[in-house]
Amino acid sequence: MLNLGILISGRGSNMESILKSIKKKKIPINPAIVISNKHNAKGLKIAKKLGVKIEVVESKGFKGTRAEYDKEIVSILTKYRVTPKKGLVCLAGFMRIISPEFTKKYKNRIINIHPSLLPAFPGLDSQKQALEYGAKVSGCSVHFVDSGMDTGPIIIQAVVKINGKDTEETLSKKILKEEHRIYPEAVNLFARKKIKVSGRKTIIS
Amino acid sequence: MLNLGILISGRGSNMESILKSIKKKKIPINPAIVISNKHNAKGLKIAKKLGVKIEVVESKGFKGTRAEYDKEIVSILTKYRVTPKKGLVCLAGFMRIISPEFTKKYKNRIINIHPSLLPAFPGLDSQKQALEYGAKVSGCSVHFVDSGMDTGPIIIQAVVKINGKDTEETLSKKILKEEHRIYPEAVNLFARKKIKVSGRKTIIS
Repeated sequence: MLNLGILISGRGSNMESILKSIKKKKIPINPAIVISNKHNAKGLKIAKKLGVKIEVVESKGFKGTRAEYDKEIVSILTKYRVTPKKGLVCLAGFMRIISPEFTKKYKNRIINIHPSLLPAFPGLDSQKQALEYGAKVSGCSVHFVDSGMDTGPIIIQAVVKINGKDTEETLSKKILKEEHRIYPEAVNLFARKKIKVSGRKTIIS
Repeated sequence: MLNLGILISGRGSNMESILKSIKKKKIPINPAIVISNKHNAKGLKIAKKLGVKIEVVESKGFKGTRAEYDKEIVSILTKYRVTPKKGLVCLAGFMRIISPEFTKKYKNRIINIHPSLLPAFPGLDSQKQALEYGAKVSGCSVHFVDSGMDTGPIIIQAVVKINGKDTEETLSKKILKEEHRIYPEAVNLFARKKIKVSGRKTIIS
């Protein structure tokens, strides 16, 4: 069985949906560790309550490069056997850019969710971007993390409609509902080895 | 009642779906003229058969600037009363870039359909772009034409799923089916004055 590490910075609602789905839907993966870059992230308490171990690598005031910070993260992941061979890393609202050293070491082993239909609206404030563009649909994308910004191979995408009354808040809420559905689904596919990566495409079996 | 001009370069399957929908679904617009930039465009015969007048402004060998070419188009549109006040211009596979003079004169009066969920995959070969990106969804967008490339305010978007077996051909076919559905729908909304444009957003009532 694979070991799962989840990185958070805040409440980690996607972390929660993944952890709950593992139990409920019997996803064959061991939730090994939740790591936060902030000691006061609300998600830490939630993880603990759900019986998952937690660690903090405080990023505020960290003396060192991005690669050195990520080395700390990797050493914790390794301690909990979330290795490039036996592990999966999920980013769940982890508000840091990952170093190329980290993404290369865990190639096609780190996944993230982004609140838009990539390649549309990458980066921050995707919901606002979609509204300002006047898009009539948006959604979310679970994807592998590579060294680019929201550019890795896509695993699943879900669509939501945008109507004239939508605000950033209502759109975010609609998208988040879909996030909580497809992120655990992607973890399940990964755990069951149903995702093959070929170039920048994924093939789901 | 508004007057409709449709510009084509080839078979004009979207032209056909619009013209048939006007009759069948009683869209309150007068199909005034179909103009092709190629004398041998197959869509000309189809338009004639459907009882719509046709004209050709041959672009091959046209001596003059893009703006001068478009002036010829505008003079034909005017002849058939497809004016900025009483007209709507639909591009249906019209393989020419429209001059800023033309788009300014017919501001929010020229619409086009693009085979992707804009702003993703603009320009040519959108279906191929989507497949190469590894997108799990794509679709089509009806939008107003401004001076940019596929950048004008969006009226309607429709979504199709992409699966592992899709080729450029199968994806194009799936998207085309949606195009034939939403393009007449957009013409109907326009004809019934149900589209308001505010900045780059459209509000559908």
